[in-house]
Amino acid sequence: MARGGGLAGHTLLLLLLAAAAAAAVTGAEVDVELVRPARTEPESEAEAAAAAAQHLLPRPLVIELPSSSSAAAAAARGGDEHEPGPDADGVPPDVRCASWRLAAEANNLAPWKAVPPECAAHVRDYVTGAAYRSDLDLVARESAAYARAAATTLGGDGRDAWVFDVDETLLSNIPYYADHGYGLELFDHHKFDEWVERGEAPAIPSSLKLYNEVRDLGFKIFLLTGRTEGHRGVTVDNLNRQGFHDWDKLVLRAAEDRKKTATVYKSEKRKEMEEEGYRILGNSGDQWSDLLGSSMSARSFKLPNPMYYIP
Amino acid sequence: MARGGGLAGHTLLLLLLAAAAAAAVTGAEVDVELVRPARTEPESEAEAAAAAAQHLLPRPLVIELPSSSSAAAAAARGGDEHEPGPDADGVPPDVRCASWRLAAEANNLAPWKAVPPECAAHVRDYVTGAAYRSDLDLVARESAAYARAAATTLGGDGRDAWVFDVDETLLSNIPYYADHGYGLELFDHHKFDEWVERGEAPAIPSSLKLYNEVRDLGFKIFLLTGRTEGHRGVTVDNLNRQGFHDWDKLVLRAAEDRKKTATVYKSEKRKEMEEEGYRILGNSGDQWSDLLGSSMSARSFKLPNPMYYIP
Repeated sequence: MARGGGLAGHTLLLLLLAAAAAAAVTGAEVDVELVRPARTEPESEAEAAAAAAQHLLPRPLVIELPSSSSAAAAAARGGDEHEPGPDADGVPPDVRCASWRLAAEANNLAPWKAVPPECAAHVRDYVTGAAYRSDLDLVARESAAYARAAATTLGGDGRDAWVFDVDETLLSNIPYYADHGYGLELFDHHKFDEWVERGEAPAIPSSLKLYNEVRDLGFKIFLLTGRTEGHRGVTVDNLNRQGFHDWDKLVLRAAEDRKKTATVYKSEKRKEMEEEGYRILGNSGDQWSDLLGSSMSARSFKLPNPMYYIP
Repeated sequence: MARGGGLAGHTLLLLLLAAAAAAAVTGAEVDVELVRPARTEPESEAEAAAAAAQHLLPRPLVIELPSSSSAAAAAARGGDEHEPGPDADGVPPDVRCASWRLAAEANNLAPWKAVPPECAAHVRDYVTGAAYRSDLDLVARESAAYARAAATTLGGDGRDAWVFDVDETLLSNIPYYADHGYGLELFDHHKFDEWVERGEAPAIPSSLKLYNEVRDLGFKIFLLTGRTEGHRGVTVDNLNRQGFHDWDKLVLRAAEDRKKTATVYKSEKRKEMEEEGYRILGNSGDQWSDLLGSSMSARSFKLPNPMYYIP
């Protein structure tokens, strides 16, 4: 009761906040386009905030701050843009870029559209080196340990489910991003779609192992991706060729989902799963928008991804 | 409607899960005591899961896995316990320990009671070196950028609030942990209380700067800590001596809160703030249990802390 009243007030507040924030940045050099809200035209921030508020999001406030005043970019920036040196505090560039990456993984950053230029080499070295693989492996092992513990208690009615995102969770787009600065370039829908349509994204090995183990434990497997229905065929083929088989649902964005943020779209789809009687016990994704929102999983696993951000 | 039904089912399921998980680990060498659920005797996992489920937690399932099968410990472990070398995959110990730390910050780990022995040096070097300070600084700068954007829209009715945790958020207990292996030793309530009662915890500099800026922007400042009412006096003195002044509430654990997890206790206190008409726009804490649960802030900031975990 008090809860309902509080929510209505919250929604109004968030609308005001979003409107004022949009106004506040008008004078600055800022592109207010949201980061990949869908693959079509961006929705307004006010719409996003309103939609988000209705879903009890932990982080409904999508304010795109001007790049020139971004704390993250400032933190990452060295004395010289092309040859970064220690900042005024004497913190080496690699330490500052590790801080930026950690902040992204802990969901501390404002929405961002590209890797800060000063951290391009750091991100490249990370995703092509041992650390990214090690990070992926550990998350998969933690996920499997939880899945095994949870599996001892499955209802036996075939209603226990695990949700997997696809891109950077089951399949890797590193070959694409290698040709586009590992997140340094602004996202290009058209070029990325061409890559998706080739159907050549490799499996993330630790995720394939986890996928098979979760399936063999008796969970229903629901794939929930921001890819659109038009890419169903190529996505199925790509997944199959990479060893992913026997999922129970593959949910892609329909036409009516295209303007929704990933958080809203995925929350709605999880709600539909719950309404069908499924219990979502695990959820694996590389974006916080795969995991947060409403109808959240009993436990979620955030795979690393310093290359792009989806709200 | 459908939502209410789903919730009831979920609560039952979580109870079953918690019970089965407790049973599953019976044969192993495992201490099922929860990590610092309060400063008194631990509640049962079933109680914790039930309480958590009522609060719509993103991660209500508190299963303590046996240390011997812990994925995190295994991931961190080298060939030789005292002189760790690369594991079977050739991943160096420091990379594996960075993965463990990242997984903790991204809320991917099962509840843990101490830093894995193999990562003791890694954690010590991290918290005493430039990286921890850089990570804290970046989170504070992101928080301040958000606070400034949000402040342009304050309601003007004195009801916009920012919640701060105290330990490892405003005040640092590094001097205590330096004497106790930086999280390698199991938490000792008695010794830690003695340290708290000295009132000598230093300010985290970036947090003090953020605190003053948030206060000067016009937010109400609510301090919400797991410390108990018995420590009110010493906490006030410690905060004042370190430069923290003029907060609007300091909420400590009352006797009836002692058995609650931090997530439940802090969610309840945030709910009370909302019921008093406050809008929680920002929340800063070093534990996910400071930030998750119900009545969550519009936006949350997770400060780094690889030394201990509080459910």
